[in-house]
Amino acid sequence: MNFLALLTSAGINIGLCSLFLMLYSILRKQPGNVNVYFGRRIAEEASRRSNSFTFERFVPSPSWIVKALQCKEEEILSVSGLDAVVFLRLIVFSMRIFCIAAVACVFGILPLNYFGQETKHKSFSSESLEVFTISNVQEESSWFWVHCLALYIISISACVLLYVEYKSIARMRLVHISQSPNPSHFTVLVRSIPKSPEESYSDSVRKFFQKYHASSYLSHQMIYKTGKVQKIMTNAEKAYRKFMHLKNIAIDQKCISGIHRCGLCATSSNTFQLHRNDFELNSKKTDLDHSNSSKIEKECSAAFVFFKTRFAAVVVSDVLQSSNPMVWVTDLAPEPHDVYWSNLWLPYRQLWIRRIATLLASIVFMFLFLIPVTFVQGLSQLDQLQQRLPFLRGILKKTFVSQIVTGYLPSVILQLFLYSVPPIMMLFSTLEGPISHSERKKSAAFKVLYFTIWNVFFVNVLSGSVISQLNVISSPKGIPTQLAKAVPRQATFFTTYVLTSGWASLSSEIMQLFPLVWNLLKRYIFQINSDRLSIPSFPYHTEVPKVLLMGLLGFTCAILAPLILPFLLVYFFLCHVVYRNQILNVYCSKYETGGRMWPIMHNTTIFSLVLSQIIALGVFGLKKSPVSAGFMIPLVILTLLFNEYCRQRFNPIFKSLSAMNLIEMDQEDEQSGRMEEIHRQLHMAYKQLPPDEIDFCSGECSSSHELHENEGSRTIQLDNDKDQTDDDNDCHKPLEKIVPVA
Amino acid sequence: MNFLALLTSAGINIGLCSLFLMLYSILRKQPGNVNVYFGRRIAEEASRRSNSFTFERFVPSPSWIVKALQCKEEEILSVSGLDAVVFLRLIVFSMRIFCIAAVACVFGILPLNYFGQETKHKSFSSESLEVFTISNVQEESSWFWVHCLALYIISISACVLLYVEYKSIARMRLVHISQSPNPSHFTVLVRSIPKSPEESYSDSVRKFFQKYHASSYLSHQMIYKTGKVQKIMTNAEKAYRKFMHLKNIAIDQKCISGIHRCGLCATSSNTFQLHRNDFELNSKKTDLDHSNSSKIEKECSAAFVFFKTRFAAVVVSDVLQSSNPMVWVTDLAPEPHDVYWSNLWLPYRQLWIRRIATLLASIVFMFLFLIPVTFVQGLSQLDQLQQRLPFLRGILKKTFVSQIVTGYLPSVILQLFLYSVPPIMMLFSTLEGPISHSERKKSAAFKVLYFTIWNVFFVNVLSGSVISQLNVISSPKGIPTQLAKAVPRQATFFTTYVLTSGWASLSSEIMQLFPLVWNLLKRYIFQINSDRLSIPSFPYHTEVPKVLLMGLLGFTCAILAPLILPFLLVYFFLCHVVYRNQILNVYCSKYETGGRMWPIMHNTTIFSLVLSQIIALGVFGLKKSPVSAGFMIPLVILTLLFNEYCRQRFNPIFKSLSAMNLIEMDQEDEQSGRMEEIHRQLHMAYKQLPPDEIDFCSGECSSSHELHENEGSRTIQLDNDKDQTDDDNDCHKPLEKIVPVA
Repeated sequence: MNFLALLTSAGINIGLCSLFLMLYSILRKQPGNVNVYFGRRIAEEASRRSNSFTFERFVPSPSWIVKALQCKEEEILSVSGLDAVVFLRLIVFSMRIFCIAAVACVFGILPLNYFGQETKHKSFSSESLEVFTISNVQEESSWFWVHCLALYIISISACVLLYVEYKSIARMRLVHISQSPNPSHFTVLVRSIPKSPEESYSDSVRKFFQKYHASSYLSHQMIYKTGKVQKIMTNAEKAYRKFMHLKNIAIDQKCISGIHRCGLCATSSNTFQLHRNDFELNSKKTDLDHSNSSKIEKECSAAFVFFKTRFAAVVVSDVLQSSNPMVWVTDLAPEPHDVYWSNLWLPYRQLWIRRIATLLASIVFMFLFLIPVTFVQGLSQLDQLQQRLPFLRGILKKTFVSQIVTGYLPSVILQLFLYSVPPIMMLFSTLEGPISHSERKKSAAFKVLYFTIWNVFFVNVLSGSVISQLNVISSPKGIPTQLAKAVPRQATFFTTYVLTSGWASLSSEIMQLFPLVWNLLKRYIFQINSDRLSIPSFPYHTEVPKVLLMGLLGFTCAILAPLILPFLLVYFFLCHVVYRNQILNVYCSKYETGGRMWPIMHNTTIFSLVLSQIIALGVFGLKKSPVSAGFMIPLVILTLLFNEYCRQRFNPIFKSLSAMNLIEMDQEDEQSGRMEEIHRQLHMAYKQLPPDEIDFCSGECSSSHELHENEGSRTIQLDNDKDQTDDDNDCHKPLEKIVPVA
Repeated sequence: MNFLALLTSAGINIGLCSLFLMLYSILRKQPGNVNVYFGRRIAEEASRRSNSFTFERFVPSPSWIVKALQCKEEEILSVSGLDAVVFLRLIVFSMRIFCIAAVACVFGILPLNYFGQETKHKSFSSESLEVFTISNVQEESSWFWVHCLALYIISISACVLLYVEYKSIARMRLVHISQSPNPSHFTVLVRSIPKSPEESYSDSVRKFFQKYHASSYLSHQMIYKTGKVQKIMTNAEKAYRKFMHLKNIAIDQKCISGIHRCGLCATSSNTFQLHRNDFELNSKKTDLDHSNSSKIEKECSAAFVFFKTRFAAVVVSDVLQSSNPMVWVTDLAPEPHDVYWSNLWLPYRQLWIRRIATLLASIVFMFLFLIPVTFVQGLSQLDQLQQRLPFLRGILKKTFVSQIVTGYLPSVILQLFLYSVPPIMMLFSTLEGPISHSERKKSAAFKVLYFTIWNVFFVNVLSGSVISQLNVISSPKGIPTQLAKAVPRQATFFTTYVLTSGWASLSSEIMQLFPLVWNLLKRYIFQINSDRLSIPSFPYHTEVPKVLLMGLLGFTCAILAPLILPFLLVYFFLCHVVYRNQILNVYCSKYETGGRMWPIMHNTTIFSLVLSQIIALGVFGLKKSPVSAGFMIPLVILTLLFNEYCRQRFNPIFKSLSAMNLIEMDQEDEQSGRMEEIHRQLHMAYKQLPPDEIDFCSGECSSSHELHENEGSRTIQLDNDKDQTDDDNDCHKPLEKIVPVA
């Protein structure tokens, strides 16, 4: 691939990107798309639409960029929570470090690489991209100290920036925790309650906590098993009772529809919009009578236990309860909206084996995925393509086509394959048995991350069959040399990868292609005119790995092939604008982990740094520059020590809550007399209801939001049913894009 | 090496062993050696010696064996604590599993191996030992299923036995914890107290705990820095004051001497035996005035904090205290006798880097140790020895000499080298900064264990230079094949290793050679007639790795070279007798970890099992028996799953105390009114005193024993100063043997 091909690729991508952004700036002004592009806003504010036709609606404008950039961090924090801020901090960190890297490498290393060998340079445009990489520098050159210095600068500034970020995020997390009374701070999830023949689980729990934690125990709430058959039975029963009610009740058009299932059968869901309060009063009573008899047998060995103070809850969750660590397992409960109800009744004894099984499954998947990737790799080599598909020979001989094929097609196909990964990893994470949506997403993010790094970076670098991959893993000593040989060779591919996959994914993200198309189909083909909104939550498990992968490519290629850095900087700038816009307008955050993703981001960045240092070590070794190679070893050690220090200094805060803060919050609440109010609301916060029941429970459920004083504004009225039903929605992210209301 | 050589070696060792055991049975009856062989007993009971000369004293007798075997587990538990019992359980477990293995392998596999190839067998005695190993079985033999079955039997019975042991030890641990009020359960060690310019550390601690744990906080006790210079200064000062006192005080001959330093200068230490009570009253007063002024500046950022209940203490130790995890670090305090005072004032911030540094140091040491081992390896090959030392050629040609050299000498030399390892590892562990003696010993045991396994097993198997070792590590895929090739070849060496190193180490253990010689020297040459006793504590860090190594050799060689098993069984039987005897008579246990060594033993056994399975996998592969090899894979997976289950089920109990038990104990003590008594004694339990002060503090210190109701009988009066001064004693175990009273 020569310089011209790269420019072609860049040109195409810049064109496409600008086109998409322009399109977006037009589409977002169309009233029909407001559901697609302003989901979060609509949920927050009363929708104010004007269907008036103005010429302005069809003129592309950059105002949204300005708006996105003008928005302050505090605003994002209050609107979308800490997790979104942490994600944006990652992008800001990447922008900063790659600015430094770009300055150091483009001005320091690029000329060195270009003039590294005393060959006659061809015209700039037809120059092979190889001459811009470190492979063009002569062996035993005395100029390697510049590369070495550049890597030192990058590593040290990365560490400094990482430390600053970690510190400020830890601070933000502490502020976030102490901000508003959170029911999860008072609640402990108890699992694996031992079975007793004489008494029900509920009685066991009461007895246990009244005996051992009498002074702090408030109340508890059992978790009920909702098996498939039971669900159907209850559903049928309830449907009948509802129907009986509906017959007698007038329809209230003012209410916003809360029912999913009618979306596809094209009946206006408004028919089901009832006087919620009337209905609830009635249905609650009958429910109560009915359930008391049947619920006891469906109780499972898990419960939410509420405590009088935050400190008591954290104590119970931290301390080993029983001398058999497999019973009375206590964990701090997730936020009410974050609870993954259908996993709560899993027997605790299964979890360790589930964890091992899913780990093995994801590793196997990681390796089996190689087969399509190897095929994609084949596509990037023109000769092989011509051999396999001889009828294409004529077309491929045209320069423009061959440039597109080599520069563009491979990564597009790879990208399409990669789309299947997040849903599968999400499925694995679900099977693992996490108790909260956020934990599931975090676990999926972790899996997708390692999958992406392995399959995009390592497989492309080491390009070969499954067996040769396994060979490489099984002889770790050869890895630096192997990487040192391969990475500069593959730098071109990575540059195009940034151009295509990176930029294109951002365009598709801002365009929200699938929801947009679905929205159009819904309105003009299926004639569904539901006002109901389905606002997706931010897909951290797909987006965080993407950004981190770009960082990895940046770090590893920085001193080897600095040409990647300008494209990467553009990518991160686009990221900055696009994700800010999306977080402000499209996604809502239903639950908060309080920035728990940051340690993953930190560790991956350290991994990327160390990897780039090891590759540099290998390259300097190959280029016979022992002094530079020698200088890499202390850098690796220092980076690892820095990581260990950060782990010691900050990581515990992200794992548990500190007694000091909790006690101070408890004391404050007690002095101000708010404690009783909090206690009263605790029991209402965690409501386990079968999915069909929830449609009518928003009045009830909204009480759980009252606790989120600051977050109240951004929790939409009906998001509780999303929590119950997005089990499938969330775990098929691309599907979610296709069928956002399903 | 042929069968005759093995028998020669066995004969020599059996002879030596019997000789030593007979000698022991005579020596133990000599009144002069009572200090050496009955240290623990003397400390316990008032010594009742008779110097009367009887003929019986010089007749060897097996009565001690009977006594050792008759002693019940409960007795050992009450006399030497849970740690000793756990160690003996390991030996019992080894005996059981190798009985099963011996039956399965000697009757099942040995004949198969012997008749594995259709060669004409020579006379049994001159048969090479190779014919008893699996290498003698033909390739593609249809009899490998027997080996496979034998390994299944061994693995499954090992897992069952391990589970039973783990369960019973966990139960014993719980009983041990709940047995008697232990001051360490009420005490938390707080480190890294933040420095404040206005107030002293002591005030900070009081304020902190009064603010955040007011309901449970009882009192606290600062830890004072005792640097080298400060020590000398204080010593000089105190010596002067003592001297002034001594001039006026009459000497009380009844008191037992408590002074170390005079032992070597041959003055009778009785001169210093004073009216302790009188003196203490005086010196305490002056100390108090004097220290109040000077101690504040010597305060360091650590303190023992006492709580009203056990549960409160465990809560404070388990919960993260501050939002900065590097300050207010809390851990449950070690037992009073277990505290490693000189490490308590180490800045907490240093510890993580110390841990990394010592880990690296021990790894480097592990590899550098190879140099002498390689030399030893050379010795075992006769030809090399003759080449290097040509003058020996004449002697080495004699059959008997050559048999001794090949069968005996190499392991003796290796053994001598190995003697330097425990002290060095103990030094590393000390530098790591553990807060208790037991933790230090456990960490040293861990290091010695991995060192021993690597340097005795792997290095001998893979026999080669440092570089070839590193090569093996760096290509993990080849390890099974490499091991499969090498282990059967080295089985002979391992058999002689069991014979020499194993049996000899037991003889030397029971004879207590170094203390014996020192005792004789002291009495007849140096004319020291001190009555003072120095009773060593059990050297778990040297003995546990020895026994575990033998287990590893047994598991790995069992199906490959079953001839090792009878010798191993004899070794474990000897172990059983010898260690029981030693624990009952010689060693005292000053502190208890409550069986915390068991997880290490369990994990190592699992490691040995998996290693033997992997080696078998390699061997079956080499012997072209794919079915048998295939059957190994589920066995490996099942063993690992079993280990993971045990880790989930039992390990947390060995790491922390369960709330249920603690609360029950608290409630019991409160109801019985014992709590106040316990509170009163708490502050006295943890006394930090400079070493020279302690000589006079036995009256004071003994108060700390009052809490050990059951252990009271086995803590000797002056062991607190042993705790302070055995820093050097404990970390040089061989030295300890040479100079037990130094």
